[in-house]
Amino acid sequence: MTRVTLLAGGVGGARLAHGLDLALGPDDLTVVVNVGDDTTLHGLEISPDLDTVVYTLAGLNDEDRGWGLRGETYATLQQMGRLGEDTWFTLGDKDLATHVVRTARLRAGTPLSEVTAQIAASLGVRPRIIPVTDDHLATFVDTPSGRLGFQEYFVGRQHADAVLGLHFEGADDARPAPGVLDALTGADLVVVAPSNPFLSVEPLLAVPGVRDALASTRARRVAVSPIVGGQAIKGPAAQILESLGHEVSALGVARLYTGLVDVLCLDRVDSLLAPAIADLGLDVLVTDTIMGGAEGRERLARELLALA
Amino acid sequence: MTRVTLLAGGVGGARLAHGLDLALGPDDLTVVVNVGDDTTLHGLEISPDLDTVVYTLAGLNDEDRGWGLRGETYATLQQMGRLGEDTWFTLGDKDLATHVVRTARLRAGTPLSEVTAQIAASLGVRPRIIPVTDDHLATFVDTPSGRLGFQEYFVGRQHADAVLGLHFEGADDARPAPGVLDALTGADLVVVAPSNPFLSVEPLLAVPGVRDALASTRARRVAVSPIVGGQAIKGPAAQILESLGHEVSALGVARLYTGLVDVLCLDRVDSLLAPAIADLGLDVLVTDTIMGGAEGRERLARELLALA
Repeated sequence: MTRVTLLAGGVGGARLAHGLDLALGPDDLTVVVNVGDDTTLHGLEISPDLDTVVYTLAGLNDEDRGWGLRGETYATLQQMGRLGEDTWFTLGDKDLATHVVRTARLRAGTPLSEVTAQIAASLGVRPRIIPVTDDHLATFVDTPSGRLGFQEYFVGRQHADAVLGLHFEGADDARPAPGVLDALTGADLVVVAPSNPFLSVEPLLAVPGVRDALASTRARRVAVSPIVGGQAIKGPAAQILESLGHEVSALGVARLYTGLVDVLCLDRVDSLLAPAIADLGLDVLVTDTIMGGAEGRERLARELLALA
Repeated sequence: MTRVTLLAGGVGGARLAHGLDLALGPDDLTVVVNVGDDTTLHGLEISPDLDTVVYTLAGLNDEDRGWGLRGETYATLQQMGRLGEDTWFTLGDKDLATHVVRTARLRAGTPLSEVTAQIAASLGVRPRIIPVTDDHLATFVDTPSGRLGFQEYFVGRQHADAVLGLHFEGADDARPAPGVLDALTGADLVVVAPSNPFLSVEPLLAVPGVRDALASTRARRVAVSPIVGGQAIKGPAAQILESLGHEVSALGVARLYTGLVDVLCLDRVDSLLAPAIADLGLDVLVTDTIMGGAEGRERLARELLALA
């Protein structure tokens, strides 16, 4: 048995979680998920990264679009528009069920971690999915136009603004959700998903205790580079690395994670960067990191598991 | 200009409101609506009677079914069932938009009367629709199986229980919503809709000030009997009249409303009851009261308007 803990944002984290779920036994995987992207819209509590991970592990996600559920309809959102609501944030009818249920249970006093476990169980998800915290944690993005809420930056303005800095509101007072620190200290392998280092991984590490648990665990720790061939697999990771003064490459990613992980996993197209990454004191795993389909995900997962 | 105020429950009130809207000018009709049926499900604030009136006046209601919106889908409710929610109360996708929007605006501090006005305006409704109160008012039904919440009695158990009594929780402390008392005292004609006298009209009158305003207004006051040929047009009005010891007829209804209205409007099939109703001191209007379609509604409305 290899106990694995994955630190995950949205799509990249969800895909690797899927691969690890295929490669591991039913009780061996814990996924600790970013909640900095969470937002309240129409009075509903929305947790995009948690939902992407849960939907993907349930086999219900929309692969083509990268978010939400397959086969969605939009009757409620359309009617909400008619009632004068701002509908820039797309919410499908089935997806809304998650938000309505989550909101009702949170308001009734159930913590987010427990609500997430309930939803995951209802959808037949096997791995343990834990939000990094049950407390308020909200990512804000500093741009030339000022400080923007995450979803305003990401969805509303299509992550077109230069990112000058990040602010994780509530992080100082947030406590790790039950099981988060144990999942890090008790794992055989900790994997940092190929998620955005600033928007997905940084808010996880900003919760007091998480960075220390990652630094001090006896688990082998590996990060998968989200930058392949100088480009982000998805989303604005490349622009953000650049605007914050980092090299837009797997080497730039390796520098960010030095001291936090033992191994950097990079794509074959970046194999020339391996020596420079090794010079940072990191072990290097060179493989195919683009996870197209279940087979590719499981193969990458098995290569990472071999590190433990 | 004839200023008309209609006291309404759900379907019967909505149909007569539609007829009055067709017969009157844009600013002449106010509909004061029961909120005793309101309930909270899945954390959402649901106001069945308000919605039936608004949807009907907007021309969006499902005529065949008698409640909800035409052309509904149920993707969200079905998914909520999958997430472990109890889905005995049917909520369509478009209807859910109303509940989500109402809940969000109520939580943000907007009173129900204002939220209702916003929703009605968004859907192009002309008459003024006012909940009888912005405060908590919840109808409970005493049955041989104990006291039941209204929707548990009505939808959950299909109004099959004998009704031994009614309780309007919060009524003593409820204040009439802005405009309710003025609408009664300032009207030329007050119409009590052919709604259930106990489940729809009683909770309206239970709000302090409303019964007095109806008793003291200088408006002509007419009630339309919801009992035709000894049967309720819709719902459990007949059983409730019987189990509470009243005669199940337009005469039984007339006795309930004696002292509150000047005129009882009854259906032609009940014309033999007219003398007995007149003996109660009420004027009698005998006409066709079954409102099938817009024409029948407008015709009945015009006959009632002729009383003013």
